[in-house]
Amino acid sequence: MTYAANNIFAKIIRGEAPCAKVYEDAHALAFMDIMPTTEGHTLVIPKEPAESLFDLSASGAQHLIVTTQKVAQAVKKAFDAPGIMLMQLNGAAAGQSVFHIHFHIIPRRAGLDITIHGRTMADRKVLEKHASQIRALL
Amino acid sequence: MTYAANNIFAKIIRGEAPCAKVYEDAHALAFMDIMPTTEGHTLVIPKEPAESLFDLSASGAQHLIVTTQKVAQAVKKAFDAPGIMLMQLNGAAAGQSVFHIHFHIIPRRAGLDITIHGRTMADRKVLEKHASQIRALL
Repeated sequence: MTYAANNIFAKIIRGEAPCAKVYEDAHALAFMDIMPTTEGHTLVIPKEPAESLFDLSASGAQHLIVTTQKVAQAVKKAFDAPGIMLMQLNGAAAGQSVFHIHFHIIPRRAGLDITIHGRTMADRKVLEKHASQIRALL
Repeated sequence: MTYAANNIFAKIIRGEAPCAKVYEDAHALAFMDIMPTTEGHTLVIPKEPAESLFDLSASGAQHLIVTTQKVAQAVKKAFDAPGIMLMQLNGAAAGQSVFHIHFHIIPRRAGLDITIHGRTMADRKVLEKHASQIRALL
């Protein structure tokens, strides 16, 4: 696997691209998906440069899942979501579109029609508001 | 959350129900999904009695993701899958149907029409064959 250091998430990690940030520590970062599948759709990424699950170190994976657990709990509360779906796509054939490993945290409600990726860009102000709702619970 | 000790995965862990086993250690178990979304659809579960991601201990989550990483690599090779999708559903509203936390490992190919759960029961002999293909790579 060849990690491309100019992918959008690498730029977000380096502070070269903006995001509606939810959480950050030395090893992980969480922010709102810019094309949300549902309201509250949040991404969690490791800072380790890994294209997919198969390139990520075991310690990186361990930190990532514990961070995801913590952020998902806050997302669930912030959006009063009865269901939370985690999704993690590896390879273009699986629908991966940014080649830096990420976990999707997707609030779900019964009967909600789900698509793998949203199709429209969300309003940045709305995303910032959602991020602050989640941050308040972390 | 009230963990129901008679759910089907608890029975599989206790050896009271059959499964096409892929991997087992002291803390985790992997086996073929009996209603596969795609060929090679594998589940990874912790032995810890946890209904969802929100009930699982941090150490349980860490062991689960590292096991999932390892099993997913073998699934990818065994089925020569260009893409691998991980899915983990929390709550009936998210599509969870067995209330013991599990990661879905789903081989994906471009253009593959994906549904969250398969709709038909797979042939047990086929599942056993698939399990042995994955086991051979672990």
